[in-house]
Amino acid sequence: MATVDQLFQPIQGRTDDTGSKVTVVGVGQVGMAAVFSMLTQGVTNNIALVDVMADKLKGEMMDLQHGSAFMRNAKIQASTDYSITTGSKICVVTAGVRQREGESRLNLVQRNTDVLKIIIPQLVKYSPDAIFIIASNPVDILTYVTWKISGLPKHRVIGSGTNLDSARFRYLLSEKLGVATTSCHGYIIGEHGDSSVPVWSGVNIAGVRLSDLNPKIGTESDTENWKETHDMVVKSAYEVIKLKGYTSWAIGLSLAQLARAVLSNANSVHAVSTYIKGEHGIEQEVFLSLPCVLGQNGVYDVIRQPLTETESAQLRKSAELMDKVQEGIQF
Amino acid sequence: MATVDQLFQPIQGRTDDTGSKVTVVGVGQVGMAAVFSMLTQGVTNNIALVDVMADKLKGEMMDLQHGSAFMRNAKIQASTDYSITTGSKICVVTAGVRQREGESRLNLVQRNTDVLKIIIPQLVKYSPDAIFIIASNPVDILTYVTWKISGLPKHRVIGSGTNLDSARFRYLLSEKLGVATTSCHGYIIGEHGDSSVPVWSGVNIAGVRLSDLNPKIGTESDTENWKETHDMVVKSAYEVIKLKGYTSWAIGLSLAQLARAVLSNANSVHAVSTYIKGEHGIEQEVFLSLPCVLGQNGVYDVIRQPLTETESAQLRKSAELMDKVQEGIQF
Amino acid sequence: MATVDQLFQPIQGRTDDTGSKVTVVGVGQVGMAAVFSMLTQGVTNNIALVDVMADKLKGEMMDLQHGSAFMRNAKIQASTDYSITTGSKICVVTAGVRQREGESRLNLVQRNTDVLKIIIPQLVKYSPDAIFIIASNPVDILTYVTWKISGLPKHRVIGSGTNLDSARFRYLLSEKLGVATTSCHGYIIGEHGDSSVPVWSGVNIAGVRLSDLNPKIGTESDTENWKETHDMVVKSAYEVIKLKGYTSWAIGLSLAQLARAVLSNANSVHAVSTYIKGEHGIEQEVFLSLPCVLGQNGVYDVIRQPLTETESAQLRKSAELMDKVQEGIQF
Amino acid sequence: MATVDQLFQPIQGRTDDTGSKVTVVGVGQVGMAAVFSMLTQGVTNNIALVDVMADKLKGEMMDLQHGSAFMRNAKIQASTDYSITTGSKICVVTAGVRQREGESRLNLVQRNTDVLKIIIPQLVKYSPDAIFIIASNPVDILTYVTWKISGLPKHRVIGSGTNLDSARFRYLLSEKLGVATTSCHGYIIGEHGDSSVPVWSGVNIAGVRLSDLNPKIGTESDTENWKETHDMVVKSAYEVIKLKGYTSWAIGLSLAQLARAVLSNANSVHAVSTYIKGEHGIEQEVFLSLPCVLGQNGVYDVIRQPLTETESAQLRKSAELMDKVQEGIQF
Repeated sequence: MATVDQLFQPIQGRTDDTGSKVTVVGVGQVGMAAVFSMLTQGVTNNIALVDVMADKLKGEMMDLQHGSAFMRNAKIQASTDYSITTGSKICVVTAGVRQREGESRLNLVQRNTDVLKIIIPQLVKYSPDAIFIIASNPVDILTYVTWKISGLPKHRVIGSGTNLDSARFRYLLSEKLGVATTSCHGYIIGEHGDSSVPVWSGVNIAGVRLSDLNPKIGTESDTENWKETHDMVVKSAYEVIKLKGYTSWAIGLSLAQLARAVLSNANSVHAVSTYIKGEHGIEQEVFLSLPCVLGQNGVYDVIRQPLTETESAQLRKSAELMDKVQEGIQF
Repeated sequence: MATVDQLFQPIQGRTDDTGSKVTVVGVGQVGMAAVFSMLTQGVTNNIALVDVMADKLKGEMMDLQHGSAFMRNAKIQASTDYSITTGSKICVVTAGVRQREGESRLNLVQRNTDVLKIIIPQLVKYSPDAIFIIASNPVDILTYVTWKISGLPKHRVIGSGTNLDSARFRYLLSEKLGVATTSCHGYIIGEHGDSSVPVWSGVNIAGVRLSDLNPKIGTESDTENWKETHDMVVKSAYEVIKLKGYTSWAIGLSLAQLARAVLSNANSVHAVSTYIKGEHGIEQEVFLSLPCVLGQNGVYDVIRQPLTETESAQLRKSAELMDKVQEGIQF
Repeated sequence: MATVDQLFQPIQGRTDDTGSKVTVVGVGQVGMAAVFSMLTQGVTNNIALVDVMADKLKGEMMDLQHGSAFMRNAKIQASTDYSITTGSKICVVTAGVRQREGESRLNLVQRNTDVLKIIIPQLVKYSPDAIFIIASNPVDILTYVTWKISGLPKHRVIGSGTNLDSARFRYLLSEKLGVATTSCHGYIIGEHGDSSVPVWSGVNIAGVRLSDLNPKIGTESDTENWKETHDMVVKSAYEVIKLKGYTSWAIGLSLAQLARAVLSNANSVHAVSTYIKGEHGIEQEVFLSLPCVLGQNGVYDVIRQPLTETESAQLRKSAELMDKVQEGIQF
Repeated sequence: MATVDQLFQPIQGRTDDTGSKVTVVGVGQVGMAAVFSMLTQGVTNNIALVDVMADKLKGEMMDLQHGSAFMRNAKIQASTDYSITTGSKICVVTAGVRQREGESRLNLVQRNTDVLKIIIPQLVKYSPDAIFIIASNPVDILTYVTWKISGLPKHRVIGSGTNLDSARFRYLLSEKLGVATTSCHGYIIGEHGDSSVPVWSGVNIAGVRLSDLNPKIGTESDTENWKETHDMVVKSAYEVIKLKGYTSWAIGLSLAQLARAVLSNANSVHAVSTYIKGEHGIEQEVFLSLPCVLGQNGVYDVIRQPLTETESAQLRKSAELMDKVQEGIQF
């Protein structure tokens, strides 16, 4: 009798279902850092990887599988065929092309839209009830594009947005104050990247607003120059890319945090890119980051932060620019 | 406008579903240690508690809820009404009456059967697809009783069995050898408690069988008296009860481990009480512990350990005794 | 050759040191919930238990040891002799007598001081560099007593204080708002218990102060009656005790959080009972809870929250009352 | 008054010490995967990174720091100057040059020895009590080289060795058997890589030796061809490198597991490269992997697995070859 037949008295067949399957599209540095964060932090132990580069894809799958003894027997699948993503609770999209030298923003967006037109319908087909988390850049516009292509309700499509910018901001506050990052509270909202908006009025330690101690905080006329902290957030993305060639760990961890909020139905608050028409005087159908309550079904509520006129004007300006770009997209 | 209405732009209603709901019936020391183990170890963050003692139940619920900031925003419900258990993935049963002085085993079993006749149909009604894990004693017979009452397939009803006895055994080996408990491998099988069976042939460190180094290990004629280690396992349950009044932490942790195996669809191996007719020459419809592969749908396989004649005779003897008791039960 | 000698080629002797040893004095419900929280949450895997009840102590030790396979091979020692506490990084004190019917507060404090006069010098002797965390009640006065008896610098003696009250407050806000406890920010300060002070000005979600949306929040004239939330915090301790006989899980988790802040040198902010003379106009040598930055060496900073006159008056009143009681203590 | 001075009442200065500092030398794919595994799995929250590539080093440091909010406020330092490594409990060495086309093994070893001659004395200088874990290849010889250069006792210098090969082996068994990797037990020992030795006699599920069910298991004459499983282990390293360009995740996780065993003083058993003279008839001063008991002070015991003549002959052959190479090294 075969070894296996001697060893086991079978009772029923195996299943792959774990109730917390996560698909990640794109096995570049961001996608893999997200997957590895989710597995090592116990967010899920069931991952499906999809990419067009079959070799790289298989290599990453095998490397993770070899570590399964160290990661709660994680189940890792990978294929260029989307059928392996069936039944995912979350689809994280990190795929996309990079900006060419001299390429216009619209051109880049169009090329990435063309990529998403292939990816998104496949994901929706195999996981019609999933929450979609978009990390591809420019993230706010591509979240809008995903929403349009997918036909899903707006609360089911989330952009990773300024959750990462906020984490960088809190780290820099932490360094400045000598207090744990998790005890430094503050949000960066709006467009992910250069024109993001730090909400200084909400920055606090133990509920103590720094703007109560220093009313000029964050402005040009602040002699303590706290504005520099936000400038460093904006610059730091470029600096990391210049220094190591890409960003990976922090964005991967940020995506894992968002995935955990959804899978554990946490109702926790995160700055993510969401459909923002009607908020802060914005009239366009655009996605920008605001603090949102996230859970099992995606976005439950948008938190209404009172903004200064300068802050909401910046949001509206971003919205206008994005709307312009969006108008030119061919679906 | 109300504070809440100013704060939130609602997008959709909340949901309680997390995909990993666990019901625990009985908020005594065992039930609460199991719940606390599951919450603090991240096995689930969604617990429904049921008991007949409404006060104690509410007190435990509140005490856990007050700790939610420390436990990934755990959601704790409690009620004497089983409707709160709706949609559980796992039902853990720790309820039951204790043996009265001079009470026969059959009488105790009958009284606990009467309790289970109330509990089990309610659980099945609200969570028809759940895996049932029974911890009430005598666990092997009450697992059989649960199976009978529930009408569920045998692979969906599991007794906590000798998973705990095996953990105690491995701890005692660990102390004797100076090696981490997780690196001391060995199984105790059969009936939970006094007549449990240590499978000495499988006891190993790094794959080195102790019985290859000491062929008399576990027998009366072993001059090193390793048999004492199993004796101490049997005695230790009584000793803990004598010293602190009950056992809680280790059985709670054992139940949490089994729940994790199911919820994460781990296919991991644990000694649990399972339907054993046909194994090791047993002809009765009884539940006894053997190493089983556990996952999402309960028991997938029973591992066939080669046993000595003494070992399998002990199993058969337990089976006969249990069958006798079971014959007398009135359903 | 003995089995062990065949199995091992010894290289060097074992050590008990792990660098993160925690002593817990008192194996009642609070002490054990703290220990179990620390072990299951991975705060430490090295615990020394001390109590005067040798039987209960041994029973708890054995029960935890039996679960070591489920808790990263936790090392558990227990003895009535303090020598086992040698080299602890943290000493948690949960021991103490309960209030007798009709007993004055001073009398209770004196009896507990007499207990601490036995415990503290022993702990200091064996772990002269430890951080002391006091949970025995009345916690603020007994933290002062510990400081006095120990002769340690004030930053090395911490009372569990209103870290728990704040957790209860945040849970109740969470229920009211439908937002995760970890996303509901707010501090309760001052005396642990009835005369604690909620700092409504700092209560916020995503940096949005509720008091900006509802300026009367927390006052008698607030038509939304948010004051009730603090009232429920005060009442809930009594209610849990009435319902289940004691509180355990939430205080245990709170203590584990404080221990983690110290062991991981987190510089995180927690409301703990600390030497408060000179803050908020307090002139007495008393310990009350304020948000503190906690790390390896205990308290690094006290956070200066701007308080309303009502709030700081309440703190000063507590300080006066405590000072009176403290004057009557015989050391 | 400055914002910070208004916010804090300082009590004492900060410290960097956490008691579990880990230095990682080399921020290539292996080093970074190890660091990220340790941080996300909570092995440590205090990392010092050293490399000669200042830009890459700073980029990796910043990227990790930006994620500190998601990783228990991890403290990350990085410098080309070893003074930042002061007081590390563990030093992980992943630095080294790669084999050039046509380069002899001795030449490669000599070039890496020249690298280690710079690194190791610096590490020893700043962390004289650390445990050294070597991952640079060829790992067994470079562990010997580190031992020689460092002057440390042999139990303080460990090579990552076949801990990874064993993990791959267990994963492949897991796939073949449909049982969780953590429930598939088996060790690969000897030289890391092509001439590693699977100890088939110890391969077991729940203590059931597969070699008892299939006595020819692992041999050429086994009709079930289990030997293929070990062949796949050997090939899989090459395959992953061919497919994705390098290996990272599994070796990173393996290193994190070894670091945890040391930092938590676990006394757990792992196949690591250790000084092996005197074991299995080996007479040379070489390092090869055998199962070892690991804790706070490094290797406590070597486990003596009974090997077949073929198995021990393979070990001796590896030892001879390595000794030859080692003779040619110029220190």
